[in-house]
Amino acid sequence: ICILLGAAEFVPSPRITWHLKEINLIHFHVQGVSNYSTLLLSEEKDVLYIGAREVIYAVSSLNVTEKLHEVYWKVTDEKNNECARKGKSKQTECLNYIRVIQPFPDNSLYVCGTNAFQPTCDYLDLNNFQLLGKNEDGKGRCPFDPAQSYTSVMVDGELYSGTSFNFLGSEPIIFRHSHQSQLRTEYAVPWLNEPSFVYADVIRAPANNPEGEDDKVYFFFTEVSVEYEFFTKLLIPRIARVCKGDQGGQRTLQKKWTSFLKAKLICHSPENNLIFNVVSDVFILKPSDSSEPKIYGVFASNLNNVGLSAVCAYNVSAVEDVFAKGKYMHSATVEQSNTKWVRFNGEIPKPRPGACMNNEARAMNYTNSLNLPDMTLQFVKDHPLMDDSVTPNGNKPRLVLQNVTCTQIVVDRVKALDGNSYDIMFISTDKGTLHKAISHDTDLRIIEEIVLFPHLQAVQTLLLSNKEGKRFIYAGSNTGVVQAPLAFCEKFASCVDCILARDPYCAWHPVKSSCVHILQESNVDGNLIQKLSGDISYCPDSAENPKGMMHTVKPGSMVELKCSQKSKIASVVWKFRKGTLKFKLPKYHPLESGLVIFNITEEDTGIYNCSSQVEVGNKIISQLLIQHVIEIEKLPTTMESTTQP
Amino acid sequence: ICILLGAAEFVPSPRITWHLKEINLIHFHVQGVSNYSTLLLSEEKDVLYIGAREVIYAVSSLNVTEKLHEVYWKVTDEKNNECARKGKSKQTECLNYIRVIQPFPDNSLYVCGTNAFQPTCDYLDLNNFQLLGKNEDGKGRCPFDPAQSYTSVMVDGELYSGTSFNFLGSEPIIFRHSHQSQLRTEYAVPWLNEPSFVYADVIRAPANNPEGEDDKVYFFFTEVSVEYEFFTKLLIPRIARVCKGDQGGQRTLQKKWTSFLKAKLICHSPENNLIFNVVSDVFILKPSDSSEPKIYGVFASNLNNVGLSAVCAYNVSAVEDVFAKGKYMHSATVEQSNTKWVRFNGEIPKPRPGACMNNEARAMNYTNSLNLPDMTLQFVKDHPLMDDSVTPNGNKPRLVLQNVTCTQIVVDRVKALDGNSYDIMFISTDKGTLHKAISHDTDLRIIEEIVLFPHLQAVQTLLLSNKEGKRFIYAGSNTGVVQAPLAFCEKFASCVDCILARDPYCAWHPVKSSCVHILQESNVDGNLIQKLSGDISYCPDSAENPKGMMHTVKPGSMVELKCSQKSKIASVVWKFRKGTLKFKLPKYHPLESGLVIFNITEEDTGIYNCSSQVEVGNKIISQLLIQHVIEIEKLPTTMESTTQP
Repeated sequence: ICILLGAAEFVPSPRITWHLKEINLIHFHVQGVSNYSTLLLSEEKDVLYIGAREVIYAVSSLNVTEKLHEVYWKVTDEKNNECARKGKSKQTECLNYIRVIQPFPDNSLYVCGTNAFQPTCDYLDLNNFQLLGKNEDGKGRCPFDPAQSYTSVMVDGELYSGTSFNFLGSEPIIFRHSHQSQLRTEYAVPWLNEPSFVYADVIRAPANNPEGEDDKVYFFFTEVSVEYEFFTKLLIPRIARVCKGDQGGQRTLQKKWTSFLKAKLICHSPENNLIFNVVSDVFILKPSDSSEPKIYGVFASNLNNVGLSAVCAYNVSAVEDVFAKGKYMHSATVEQSNTKWVRFNGEIPKPRPGACMNNEARAMNYTNSLNLPDMTLQFVKDHPLMDDSVTPNGNKPRLVLQNVTCTQIVVDRVKALDGNSYDIMFISTDKGTLHKAISHDTDLRIIEEIVLFPHLQAVQTLLLSNKEGKRFIYAGSNTGVVQAPLAFCEKFASCVDCILARDPYCAWHPVKSSCVHILQESNVDGNLIQKLSGDISYCPDSAENPKGMMHTVKPGSMVELKCSQKSKIASVVWKFRKGTLKFKLPKYHPLESGLVIFNITEEDTGIYNCSSQVEVGNKIISQLLIQHVIEIEKLPTTMESTTQP
Repeated sequence: ICILLGAAEFVPSPRITWHLKEINLIHFHVQGVSNYSTLLLSEEKDVLYIGAREVIYAVSSLNVTEKLHEVYWKVTDEKNNECARKGKSKQTECLNYIRVIQPFPDNSLYVCGTNAFQPTCDYLDLNNFQLLGKNEDGKGRCPFDPAQSYTSVMVDGELYSGTSFNFLGSEPIIFRHSHQSQLRTEYAVPWLNEPSFVYADVIRAPANNPEGEDDKVYFFFTEVSVEYEFFTKLLIPRIARVCKGDQGGQRTLQKKWTSFLKAKLICHSPENNLIFNVVSDVFILKPSDSSEPKIYGVFASNLNNVGLSAVCAYNVSAVEDVFAKGKYMHSATVEQSNTKWVRFNGEIPKPRPGACMNNEARAMNYTNSLNLPDMTLQFVKDHPLMDDSVTPNGNKPRLVLQNVTCTQIVVDRVKALDGNSYDIMFISTDKGTLHKAISHDTDLRIIEEIVLFPHLQAVQTLLLSNKEGKRFIYAGSNTGVVQAPLAFCEKFASCVDCILARDPYCAWHPVKSSCVHILQESNVDGNLIQKLSGDISYCPDSAENPKGMMHTVKPGSMVELKCSQKSKIASVVWKFRKGTLKFKLPKYHPLESGLVIFNITEEDTGIYNCSSQVEVGNKIISQLLIQHVIEIEKLPTTMESTTQP
């Protein structure tokens, strides 16, 4: 029964790895400041706001080394001491970690920090980059403990957050902070059961939608399953949602969500029974055209975890169907003492519990959540969990990665020159790298891997700028922030290299004779060459001859023939006298940088061609990289031992 | 949350791999005969019986190449055609695969074969090695399909088997075949749910046990869980047991087991949440002294399977406690339509359902299962599954293996010269290898790996001979049977090598000056040196100098210094001029067989010492393997270009 999983079969390798010294990334770092974990971009002002430990920066989003402003927000000695007395670390935990930076009206930002286990929020006036010193209680908006999971999103001036509500971190909460109506989750296992929050975002109802639907805020987290049982605690990924117009109930669910529903977020590969039961991060791609938003999640597993991660993608319409039409789960008491969750098959009250207000409800005279009937409210209070699951597109992961622990994901939709749109996934890891992957129909590749940070630092946050012509990725780690371009087209020197990269951002410009970034070309005319199939036959014939090297050596000596390539998915092939060289020690010794040939004799003289070979769509593409020639050194005639007759 | 599992941290590597050409294993194979899957050893007669496809052999157990007898048992053309008409393969499935060879009274064997999907049993008369031609219906004793799982054990002339009862393989059964009282399991999901049988064995009640307990037959299998739920079908390993004295019920459970109970057989590593939910094979170690039998199981996982296997060990007393004192599970109907299994907390009828007859029951006038009250029988019929689990010793696996798929296990208990007993696990794989492992307190090692079969053939069956002085391991595969010794002591040429092997079977004999197998030494006197801690200081000082080699080379040329060792857990260290050599290309190039030094100059002349270093119990043990000396060739004085003044 036990089967060995040939991971290599379905796990792609990055085609290229760009190391720090090969590319020019722009780094921001201030001596003595750590934990650059919170980023906010103002595309309008070309400013990136950075929340680190005890300080907030404003830097230019076009060049993050350019610091515009800074404001320190330190804990007082008194608070620091008080926190230390409670058993926390004075030097680390009892400081102020900025966890929330959100836009706020009147040219200001809403900011929160852990503030020595006394979470506090304030307003940052952008006119003078000073904190107003309001020191609002940040409970429910920001965690007490910098090590704890949290997420937040600002929607129309109201902060939605998922965090913990107490010093111990034992009371989880999904909270809306607003001066008009604060709402929160029930403190009850069926609502939230030891959650780890990873992401929250709003999905707007389309303007003028005929059903009069509300905007919805989605939360993503991993929690302990109540509906499944195993001999160990079973974690399960969740998606939850609330409605923007929710105002809580009148009697039942007073100041609580009346629209909180959650469902399993499945990421499972049925063909090899890979179960990804921990969601690590989520990104909601909201296309600029009117097409449907798409949810991308990176997942890991805590069951037999041997370093696999996966990306699953979900349609928002599938998510909405589960919440709007799916069955509910029901907690039944079995044999007096056991609680088991089963599908609820009874009659569901009207209006539908947990539904957002729409025209249908309004027609029934339910104008807002305050006048919903008790039956509906009591039902949703007892049945926050859906029986139906949110299943991924294609019913399996888009991508499975091995030997990396993924931390964050952002996704960009790029329109390539073939007229198709491609979703490019940027996935960061705990080792400071970024994987840029494409998954389009059956075409599944990691275009490149980029080393963002030295010393294997975990990437804590990832941000994508959408501003036309000024598109960058920003990544935060414990030691700094880095700004990276979306592609490294200019690194490909020839048309063949440019095409073989198969990067939707890159195309060959025959006039400039360079590989260009299509979004940065003002004039994308018909002359650019982009063939994402990797078909290099469209490239103009290269007049350039491959490089050649001559080696004149003594008989019996050794020679090293250099030949290397960037692509890690291509193989190097050596040809000599019309045949492919078979490497066999002690004669030939292949190195990463080339080939060593030992004990050279007359037999070894001649031309050695080193080529790169790669399979693209069942076709082998071969490219001559370098030509070496070996000849034997003619020794000057010295004394000869043979005596002449 | 996602954590990369550094597998190497807890998965030991074999210290040594013995390849086929290095060791003299004895192979048995007959041209044209395949599937040597069933083995039975007669230690009394020194005969090994081998069941292959359509033939049974008797060979010498001291030398399996010595064939003593053979008898063919072929399917008739008629049966072969009939089977093919039902859609099975005429050339493979529709043949007779011998699946049962068990000892039987009157110098005979009880044998069963699949017989072209019409399982048939017969008696083999050992006086003339002829089948009696009784052709009994083998349903329930032998599977129809050679690809299906099965197990059997003969106990006091009665055959206990776990297999499937029909052509389709859809009706699983645990069956006792006996001319007096045939018993079987209920055909019902709570009893057996798509099981894969792997092992069965009897554990005898101690002679004169005060409770008058019965002998018990244990079955091991993997089945689909009813008590746990997940979004995929969940497999779970089981241990089940029946009592030898069971005769079925009078009305309820007529001709069915009244003593069938089963429990979860947990093999879980809590520290890294590794879940081994598939049992692949089991071995019950029954010590020759009166100490308690021990159950060893090899496990795999079908959840996120990336090639991990584990060995878990269980005390028989822990197993008996679960069945004799544990809680039962109860199937409850929830909300009319769902079945959920929960702990049964109600009153349990007396006598205890599923219990074997003992003095207490007899005192209550229940002399055998036929007069058990209906209450007890109905309860066990409905509650065959225990709520308590059988947990492994130490609550975690004894051993975790990576990148091997384990097929079979046998365990030997050897008394070493330090007076301690060590359980040596022999674990075969699907690649034709055998891992010999020790797990004693914190000492967890794979002593050696033995290649039993060429061409990566799966080992299908493994057998251990216990006969004093004639101890071997027998392994069967698709192409033959191999006989291997329990240790390769004689391969260690020096006292240091012998001690560093840390093999409880091996000790250094200072008089013979050889590494000897302690169980084969007639006179194990106090002179043998065995230090399982690896303490080589007990070895007599070796008068032998290490081997040396002289290299006289031209300046600028290269030289290869040979040095290799068998141990894969030790590292090779090169010392030169008092320092440890750091390998750096292009100067030094380490190979598996030694070291290549390029471009020799005067700087490189001198003595190179190659040592083996291994860490044993936090101590580094170093052993000089070979000494090389490099000197520069003195060129004969030729014409010099300097002119004398």
